[in-house]
Amino acid sequence: MSKRVHNFNAGPAVLPVPVLEQARDEMLDYQGCGMSVMEISHRSKEFESIIQTAEADLRDLMGIPANYKVMFLQGGATLQFAMLPMNLRAAGASADYIVTGSWSNTAVKEAKKLGDTHVVFDAKADNYNRLPSAGELQLNPQAAYLYYCHNETIHGVEFKDDPTPLAGVPLVCDMSSDFLSQPVNVDKYALILAGAQKNAGPAGVTVVIAREDMLERTPANLPVMLDYKLLAESGSLHNTPPCYSIYIVGLVLKWLKGLGGLPGMYELNRKKADLLYKAIDNSGGFYRGHAQAAARSIMNVPFRMPSEELEEQFVKEAKKADIIGIKGHRSVGGLRASIYNALPMAGVEALVQFMQEFQQKAG
Amino acid sequence: MSKRVHNFNAGPAVLPVPVLEQARDEMLDYQGCGMSVMEISHRSKEFESIIQTAEADLRDLMGIPANYKVMFLQGGATLQFAMLPMNLRAAGASADYIVTGSWSNTAVKEAKKLGDTHVVFDAKADNYNRLPSAGELQLNPQAAYLYYCHNETIHGVEFKDDPTPLAGVPLVCDMSSDFLSQPVNVDKYALILAGAQKNAGPAGVTVVIAREDMLERTPANLPVMLDYKLLAESGSLHNTPPCYSIYIVGLVLKWLKGLGGLPGMYELNRKKADLLYKAIDNSGGFYRGHAQAAARSIMNVPFRMPSEELEEQFVKEAKKADIIGIKGHRSVGGLRASIYNALPMAGVEALVQFMQEFQQKAG
Repeated sequence: MSKRVHNFNAGPAVLPVPVLEQARDEMLDYQGCGMSVMEISHRSKEFESIIQTAEADLRDLMGIPANYKVMFLQGGATLQFAMLPMNLRAAGASADYIVTGSWSNTAVKEAKKLGDTHVVFDAKADNYNRLPSAGELQLNPQAAYLYYCHNETIHGVEFKDDPTPLAGVPLVCDMSSDFLSQPVNVDKYALILAGAQKNAGPAGVTVVIAREDMLERTPANLPVMLDYKLLAESGSLHNTPPCYSIYIVGLVLKWLKGLGGLPGMYELNRKKADLLYKAIDNSGGFYRGHAQAAARSIMNVPFRMPSEELEEQFVKEAKKADIIGIKGHRSVGGLRASIYNALPMAGVEALVQFMQEFQQKAG
Repeated sequence: MSKRVHNFNAGPAVLPVPVLEQARDEMLDYQGCGMSVMEISHRSKEFESIIQTAEADLRDLMGIPANYKVMFLQGGATLQFAMLPMNLRAAGASADYIVTGSWSNTAVKEAKKLGDTHVVFDAKADNYNRLPSAGELQLNPQAAYLYYCHNETIHGVEFKDDPTPLAGVPLVCDMSSDFLSQPVNVDKYALILAGAQKNAGPAGVTVVIAREDMLERTPANLPVMLDYKLLAESGSLHNTPPCYSIYIVGLVLKWLKGLGGLPGMYELNRKKADLLYKAIDNSGGFYRGHAQAAARSIMNVPFRMPSEELEEQFVKEAKKADIIGIKGHRSVGGLRASIYNALPMAGVEALVQFMQEFQQKAG
């Protein structure tokens, strides 16, 4: 038996044990072909089946309409932050960005390098503990698109009701850290991007789901690896894709389908998040969540304690109890528990029990 | 025991069995940390050790001088074809390219999208079966750099004596398909790029080795994922790198060191290539190598047979003998055996024996 810990890492993050077991068992011989998935050609029938099955399962799970293309790309969300304006924002046009935390902030920085970028909301004054109300958004009816981040991994704020763009303005969403955690209406979006290393697989592959009319915006003469239109039309196979990462994503998607798809996953995620937030709320202020209640993420739960010394001690003792990855990001401080799809309820229960015991000892 | 075949794939390609075995054994629990390498933070001490050890082993194997930076990037050589001129060719400057096959041709196409690109040699008229002589190169003394591809995977031509740039012109080399196959004098180069999925690891990671003065050329305001200077300074950790692919590269580097490093590897590669080329040369014209003798690659051996029907039959029957990945690229036709580092001598022996038996039956 392998040793396993309670893995609260923010990403790369915990993966389902059955996925890892299958990857282990197939490492030297994928389904009788006598090669590892890492050793087969991306033009082979074996890999074609892997990538096509992954796409079909993703379409099935998310209900992706036929007029959307699915891409498996490289470079993480960070490369998407540049590809997005390169492809979707015509020369001279402006794009609207909602800033609710570190990741949407980074997206703005990249977009500004490449052209006119309008920040329509920024929660910096509240240290990104809340979401905008509809009335706070100063939207541009001529915007090339309206961009937002569905879940801010560092600040732990997650949209429940998505921002509504003005008529004719495409909605673009960074879904990296709550991708596949809940049902989603894909047809609200013109483009969805998601780095895989939170809920969908290992680092090194990024899923992009784009409505076909968006691909018509790609300007001529972009380098091929930055060209949505070309990458979409090639089925992510213009050059060698990150084959092994796509294979793992495919295994995760099968695992999700076995759990009842996104509604089943969401129910479990809600239960996990409720348990953890209840422990925070019932601690009499010993633990304090960073996000305002209405903005709380079901994936990333940053919280503080009465002193930095206690926080440090908490991290140290948690590690002894095999509770890993609990230190908060330096911009928020304190603790953060990332409770992604593959983190089982038993992991949250172990954390909550540890929190209660720690508080009793400290009190 | 896992079934294993003789894997002649051109890339993704065969990996060393001990590497795959270690990856399998560590899949659920990397060195007692209770997590897979796919599940650990890229900021953890475990992953820091993985990436730093990989870099140290690469520096040791290749003798990389201290004034060179090593990067582990995403997007394959194809993204490098764009990043290279974006970073190293100033606005208005021109770069020289030597075209010896498909891959250098693709590099030119990308470079031309972004600025002035001068093809100083093109072997198209000979269907890329040869290399330039020094006298054939029309070099520009003002060139931003001189680019060439050390080994053309599709056409099977490989430089023995590298092209000599004019004084002050940096030499840039795509080493993807013979990376780590032989000793190399890194200090001849200003920049080396290599997609990993031939000799170094799985698809999804690209190694870039850049002399520090080249990083000073990076213009302001490039998107971060296209910015050599920033990526080099962050130790490839500005955002989440392709962690698992880097881990596998690290295992391959350890395996190479155990085999006696690049001199030991080269000796074995020479023996394998000699055996295969001898089988071709001694076939009385039944098998005909694509490349001229002086240009022959020790990694990729494309060859033809008397008819396309025979070639098709060869591929089919080879597969029954567990000889896989032997079909040539459509632009050259015929057969191609890629005999990378991890393809054991026994694999070449099996292929040569099969070739001889096939010829006897056909005759």
